[in-house]
This record gives sequence, structure tokens and C-alpha cells, in this order.
Amino acid sequence: MFAGSPSSTQDKLRRAKAAALRLAQLSTLQKNAILLVMADALLDKSKEILASNRADLESCSLSEPMRDRLLLTEGRIQAMAGGVRDVANLPDPVYQTLSETTRPNGLHIRKVRVPLGVIGVVYESRPNVTVDTAALALKTGNAIVLRGGKEALHSNQKLVEILSGVTGLPEGAIELLDSSTRQSTQDLIQARGLVDVLIPRGGGALISYVAQNATVPVIETGAGNCHIFVDESASLPMADKIVINAKTQRPSVCNAAEKLLVHRTIAEEYVPHIVKQLIAAGVEVRGDEETRRLSAGLAVSPAEEQDWHEEYSRLCMAVRVVASVEDAIAHINRYSTQHSDAIVTSDEARARQFLRQVDSAAVYWNASTRFSDGGEFGFGAEMGISTQKLHARGPFAVAELTSTKYEIIGTGQVRK
Amino acid sequence: MFAGSPSSTQDKLRRAKAAALRLAQLSTLQKNAILLVMADALLDKSKEILASNRADLESCSLSEPMRDRLLLTEGRIQAMAGGVRDVANLPDPVYQTLSETTRPNGLHIRKVRVPLGVIGVVYESRPNVTVDTAALALKTGNAIVLRGGKEALHSNQKLVEILSGVTGLPEGAIELLDSSTRQSTQDLIQARGLVDVLIPRGGGALISYVAQNATVPVIETGAGNCHIFVDESASLPMADKIVINAKTQRPSVCNAAEKLLVHRTIAEEYVPHIVKQLIAAGVEVRGDEETRRLSAGLAVSPAEEQDWHEEYSRLCMAVRVVASVEDAIAHINRYSTQHSDAIVTSDEARARQFLRQVDSAAVYWNASTRFSDGGEFGFGAEMGISTQKLHARGPFAVAELTSTKYEIIGTGQVRK
Repeated sequence: MFAGSPSSTQDKLRRAKAAALRLAQLSTLQKNAILLVMADALLDKSKEILASNRADLESCSLSEPMRDRLLLTEGRIQAMAGGVRDVANLPDPVYQTLSETTRPNGLHIRKVRVPLGVIGVVYESRPNVTVDTAALALKTGNAIVLRGGKEALHSNQKLVEILSGVTGLPEGAIELLDSSTRQSTQDLIQARGLVDVLIPRGGGALISYVAQNATVPVIETGAGNCHIFVDESASLPMADKIVINAKTQRPSVCNAAEKLLVHRTIAEEYVPHIVKQLIAAGVEVRGDEETRRLSAGLAVSPAEEQDWHEEYSRLCMAVRVVASVEDAIAHINRYSTQHSDAIVTSDEARARQFLRQVDSAAVYWNASTRFSDGGEFGFGAEMGISTQKLHARGPFAVAELTSTKYEIIGTGQVRK
Repeated sequence: MFAGSPSSTQDKLRRAKAAALRLAQLSTLQKNAILLVMADALLDKSKEILASNRADLESCSLSEPMRDRLLLTEGRIQAMAGGVRDVANLPDPVYQTLSETTRPNGLHIRKVRVPLGVIGVVYESRPNVTVDTAALALKTGNAIVLRGGKEALHSNQKLVEILSGVTGLPEGAIELLDSSTRQSTQDLIQARGLVDVLIPRGGGALISYVAQNATVPVIETGAGNCHIFVDESASLPMADKIVINAKTQRPSVCNAAEKLLVHRTIAEEYVPHIVKQLIAAGVEVRGDEETRRLSAGLAVSPAEEQDWHEEYSRLCMAVRVVASVEDAIAHINRYSTQHSDAIVTSDEARARQFLRQVDSAAVYWNASTRFSDGGEFGFGAEMGISTQKLHARGPFAVAELTSTKYEIIGTGQVRK
């Protein structure tokens, strides 16, 4: 039964829960075979996918960035299919033994990875999320319930129809909820007992809405107010390279840097130097009082309190002069979204202090924050970058799409 | 500043958050030294603790089980102090390296355990929870915010005053919230950004209230509708021993068995046999139609649909005859709270099927469900038994009171 059929959210969730028990029993070979057929099916039906995508593109007026996020092309379909093949090639974490012990009373206790069960994904316009998350969920023996954006309705319906149609996939393994009202989101995020985890993927407002209103556990992803601290002992050419890369290489993503902190000792030399380079790279620069004083003659507008909290997600950066590494750490622990923060320094003791004391998912010494990514970390496809501390933190992939179970084998032991 | 001082919940949470950053930097030796002084302080001040406890016992009329849960004695204070010493002796998980890799671009990526930050605990009358959780939180470098029951107000204030007074413990490491109104609970469970995780410890109503109303992530613990399935090939003397132990050895706890499923093939012989033993052990028995037919002449009342869901937490058991191991698994996956479920069988293939297909935190073959316990699993003191799938599942102790962090060391790498 594919997603286009009329069916209530509750029915779909119940089907997903039933499917989860069957998916958990599929072997690695079975799951990989289905994934490879899915990849082929996407390529075989690329014309249908493009037609559905055109229907979405024509049905509403979109800003250019939104249109680009929604747009599918032959190349993007090939990339999606390639992504599915990559997931087939990942190691299967399910039923991996994590620990094993025999207790003095003879009980044998084994901790194994098991699927989470039903994963709910709430997301916005990118149709590739539909395919990526369906592939990752299948690889890990989970059922998935998708609640995409209404602007991608036809694209998502077509993609789920193609993926769900693959022989061997249990009915209910991939369910697509009605995206025309908010009710389906509400039903999904409060479906305790039917859904095991929610992963919102999208902008801050979406993630915050889900986290605030869900009664199902959530893995929060993606909010990135990332910092770079240039210490007094930094190699300044290295600092230039890292700051410009982290800010400008892809400013819309969550691991792009948003804030620059400069040690007071080098501020007089370094602040005007880097501000000039940022402006030359098309970056709007905001600054604290000291930064503005040191950047006299350059276009630096005042940074307000709100600036230190904000994730710009565009070519904008706020710069602040700090008195010490301790001040830098305190600023970051106060304002950071705990995603990715970096120090540039040649002083190892300060670097170690920064790595240890900055309470973020990924903390860098002498590298760009842009590396916070499942692929760059060597995990293969990633499900997201968690900015919470429970279950998954930082880039996470298949291992974090599992739970665990204890299997205990005895010979009639009872408790005394 | 100890818990008796007037201070709003927000102030206490902010102090706890500030304390968390300092607690994360304490060495294992420092933490263990504080724990040992805490244990001594509890013994030194046992008279004061007993006096506070008497004030609680006298201030309200309590049922006998509630009074017993609240009551402290010299022996119980010694046990609490011993528990704190045991926590000092546990290995320290903080800054343990979980994985380490050098990427082709030279980036060195290390995943380390770090404290969660601030742990909120909402609990009921047992004052030992105050001491146990404070010790486990300190061991793992976390600050703790306690919201105990109002019936234990004086006991908890005195215990927190003693523990907080130990030299070397950062101010705010142990905060006790006002237990006289529900507002403090509400403030705690919705303190996103100040509290990292909530662990409710108590009855089903408390846990469900927290899970439904929290916006902070929750680890749900303790709901236990546990099953024992006696297969047709079971050793019946072993089944007797396991059923009677799991039901009667300590019926109030979450890992006690509540339901008995019997394979149809042996039901005619085994049902009247075990029902007689259960009744002789003082257990109220309820049964499905088949069980009642086979127990003619014995006092077996009809089990209603609600019985299959209910956690009795007392000497009561519902019995059902099932047609196969598949039926037993389906019944358990439908009604179990996914805590602990057992099969008694001499057929290995069926046992493996049961272990794999029952979707519970702990699944037993030929042993009592009563072993689901941190101590019995060899973890030392436990924080609880998680019945959810995220972050911690089953008995969990110090390792699950940590999060992780990636520390990435480069030489100026930027993203291409």
C-alpha cells in the first residue's frame, strides 16, 4: 500500500509498528538486496519522478533558495540512487554484540544492538531526505514514518510509491503522512507507544516546534551557532584560512562558522586584517565595540546581544575581542548551540583546555568547523548532527539508529 | 548554599548549570575523595538525619508501605553511606575514549565520554534516592537537581545539607527544589537549556506525568508488566521455581512477573499444577477462559482486557493459555511494558526465536525476570531500569549518565 492511498495517520502508524517487528527480523543480505533494487527503481522511474517534481515546482511560488532545495534533476536522482547504494555497502549494526559477560551465578548476559522500531521524520522541502532516511531506516531494520513539506507533496508521494513497491519490503515499512495540515505532524509527534523516536530535519523553527510539542523522544539536530577563537599564539595565515573557509565555503549549512572571537593581545593587528578579508569575501561583518574601534574605516555594524545567539546561515559574521582563552570558553558555553566550535592556537595547553572545557558536540583545534559531517568523520551517510546530549551527539549515522537489548541465558536461576 | 535557603527554581537551576561546568573538570581522585567524605558525613550526622526523618513521619498520616518507604533507621543510613562508598569504587567513565581515528586528510578525531551536565530527578518518598542519585551524579561529573516528595521534605533537606556541605563540592552541584507545590516540578521538566536530562523515579503515574509534560529529554524507568512463557518443552520443575520466584520473591518491584503464558500442549497438566502453587503462595490468580476451565475448583477469577496491560506490583498474577511460541511473542509484544520477559523451554531454536523477537529491554531464557537489576548485571549501583529505547535501555548505571563529545585535532585543514 503506497502513500497515495487515503488512510488516517493512526492507521499508518499502526502499520509502521507492525512492519517494525518484521523489519527487525530481516537479514543483512535481505536488506541490502532491497536497497539495491530501490536504487535501480529510482533510476528506472526517473522520468516519473521528474514529472511529479515539476508538478510541485509549478504548484506554488517559491523563493530561489527554496526552489533549489525542492528541485530534482537527472543528476540529483542519480545522486540519490548512489546514496542508497552507499547505504547498502555500510556495515549492518543490527544484532552486533556490544558486551558479553557470565555472572558468578552462571547467567550469561549479552548486550546486542537492535532496531529502534518506528522512526518519525519531520522535514521540509528537500525530497532527497525522503530517500536518504528511508534507506538508513531500512538498513537498520526500522520502519519510518515521513512527514515532509507540503511544497514537496507530489515528489515525496512518487518517491515513497517507488521505494515501497520493492518486493520483499514489509507493508508499512515506509509510510508518508498527509502534508496538507499540521494535524498529521501533531499526531505523529505525540504518538507514544507507536513511534519510538522523532528526528526533525530542517530549520530552527521546525526543530524547536517538534522538541517543544512532542511526547515521543526527539533527537534534535542541526542548530549551528558555531564559533572560531583565534588565540594570541595562533598562526595567523592558518587562522585566515580556517575563518574564511568556515564562514564562506557554504554559509547556509549548520557547521558554518557564525562568530569570530579574537584574543586581545593580537586584536589590534588581526581584527582589521580579517575584517578586510571577510568583507572582500562578501561577508557582512558585525562587531563589539572593540572590534568596531579597531576596524575604523571598514563597514562593521554594531553587534547586539541577539547577534551572539543568532545562527545567520548566510554571509554574515559577528566578531568580538576577548581577554583570554577562559573568556572565549565562557562566551562559547553561554551562546553556542553546542554544535561545533574551534580554537586556532599553537599553544597545546590552551588547545587542550579549550577541547575539554567547551561543552559542544564537536570541538576543533586548528581545523575548520565545516568538517562536522558524517561523511567527513568516516561514518558514511549521516542521519543528522545531533545538538543534544542524549543517545546521539554530533554527526550520527546507522549505529545511532539502533537501541540495545539484553539477552540473558540461564539454567533455571532464581533470585535469592 | 544548602537546600533550605529560600531561592527560586530558576536560581537553583542556573546554579546547577554553572556547577556542571566545574564538576566536569574535577579529576577522578577529587570526586572519589568527596564521595568518601560524604559517606562519613552521613554516619557522623545520623542523629540529625533520624530527627529530620521523624519530623516527616510525624507530619502526615501514611499507609504502612509508604511509611516503610519513608522510614530511615541507623541500619538504612549505614546502607546509604555504604552505597556512596561503592560509587566511589566504581570506574570513572568521564573522558574515557570510545573511538579514535585519523582521517585521510590528517584530522585526528577522538570520541570521549563527557558528563551530561545537569540531571533532574523527580521522585517519591524514599530518601535513599536523594543520596544514591547525588553520589552517581557526582561520580559522573554531573550536577543534580532533586525534586523529592513533600512527605520526605525534612529528610531530604537534611541529607542535601549534609552532602552539599562537603568541602570541594562546587556550589550548586546538588540542588533540592521546593516540594510543597507542583510548580517546581513543572519548572524543572520544562527547563530546556538549563537541564540536560530528566530521570523520574517512582510509580507509573509520576513517570507518565513527567514523560507527557516535559520538554527536557526524559529517560523513562521502571514500568514493569513482565511475562513468563512456559513452553511445551519446558522442564516443569524449573518452570515452577522461576514462576514462583519471579512472582513472589518481591512482588512490589518492577522486575517481578505479572503474567504467565502457558503453551496449550502442556496446559491441561501444568495450569492446575502452577495455579495451585501460586494460590498456596498467597497469590491472587486471574485467568483467561481456558485457564479457568482447566483450574476448575480453584479460585481463579476472570482476567479482563485491562488485566493484560496492568502492572499489579502485588501478589496477583494473570494466566493465559497460548497456542504457540509465536502467540506468546505476539501477546508479549502487544501488552508488555518492554521491561523483562522470560521463556522457559528446553528447545534452543524456540528460545533463540523468543530472545530475538520479543522487543523488550531484557529477555530471559530459563531464568527469573527478577535479575533485571544493575547490581545483578554487574554494573554496581544503578540509576534505574530504562523502559525506553533511546540512550539507555534496561538497567543502567554510570556509563549512561554520560554523553559524548568529539575532539578533533588538525593542522589547519579546511573543507574543499
